[in-house]
Amino acid sequence: MSDTSLLQQLIEALRILPGVGVKTAQRMAFQLLERNRQGALNLADRLREAVEKIGHCQQCRTLTERPICRICSSASRNREILCVVESPADVMAIEHGTDFRGVYYVLMGRLSPLDGIGPTELGLDKLERRLEDGEIKEVILATNSTVEGEVTAHVIGEMARKRGIRTTRIAQGVPVGGELEYLDSSTLSHAFSGRRDYA
Amino acid sequence: MSDTSLLQQLIEALRILPGVGVKTAQRMAFQLLERNRQGALNLADRLREAVEKIGHCQQCRTLTERPICRICSSASRNREILCVVESPADVMAIEHGTDFRGVYYVLMGRLSPLDGIGPTELGLDKLERRLEDGEIKEVILATNSTVEGEVTAHVIGEMARKRGIRTTRIAQGVPVGGELEYLDSSTLSHAFSGRRDYA
Repeated sequence: MSDTSLLQQLIEALRILPGVGVKTAQRMAFQLLERNRQGALNLADRLREAVEKIGHCQQCRTLTERPICRICSSASRNREILCVVESPADVMAIEHGTDFRGVYYVLMGRLSPLDGIGPTELGLDKLERRLEDGEIKEVILATNSTVEGEVTAHVIGEMARKRGIRTTRIAQGVPVGGELEYLDSSTLSHAFSGRRDYA
Repeated sequence: MSDTSLLQQLIEALRILPGVGVKTAQRMAFQLLERNRQGALNLADRLREAVEKIGHCQQCRTLTERPICRICSSASRNREILCVVESPADVMAIEHGTDFRGVYYVLMGRLSPLDGIGPTELGLDKLERRLEDGEIKEVILATNSTVEGEVTAHVIGEMARKRGIRTTRIAQGVPVGGELEYLDSSTLSHAFSGRRDYA
């Protein structure tokens, strides 16, 4: 057994983090051990606690330590507007960046047959039952603007339309602060076809 | 207390890692919780174990879980050649990249008066006692090629020379694979002044 074994084990363990290779993992391990042992212990506790206690919301499937998440169980949210997103990160981004006051349905992925992700994995059956029960008046499709995200939006859009529920898709176009010159042609084309009357 | 509290706490805890901002910490937390809970638990254990058990080698000051590290306690290393480096990461790089078979002295930093890092913090008194005892025949100065690294090398070089110990500095010049065209002028100038007879 080499004497660097604990250190090597720590470096190996850090590499499960997305975007962290050998060099970065080494730097992280050294920095924690040399400068922030208290922070490292705290991180260890938070990791364990999160893994042991965080599960999925029974209503919207997002990550939460409660049976029903804070948003789904809030009395002040409008349960008639359902925003469908791919991940809990999207919920966080929408909560921080918009004044949306409806509720969410978190797919925890996107349709991707090649990766074995179909309707069941995304809980579309559960979503369908929810659309069935008549409470929802509008479905906002807020999946990513990727090929898979569009396909997923299309499938859910069909499900909603079949039941006569209003279905909207978040707007595509020029990002705020964006310069036309540097925009890809597909975004620019969407921006033109989606143009609106100028008040 | 918000229901995302455990998740938020985990995201906050991840931000102590070098180079990890809010967005990256979010991505790490989601990835761990959605795809690699076992890896997260393992990381928690490795962090705790490393913090609790890893200390400094009594001889060379590197990070190790033993009183004397593997290199210092190895019978096959040449104790007459001492390589002075700034950090345990440097030891790892030299062990992987060279066939150096001497021993190390790890400063755990570099002279940096503005940051309050002086000779005491780098254990230069201990290093001096070691140079004193006569076993060391050569000191290789392998601190970084930065201003602070050069100053540190200079100070230690003086300490060694005063005791008649041979002192060398690792070579500066063109990195292997490097193209002259893209090299900074200071490196190029070092490469010229340090030119050697071409065999």
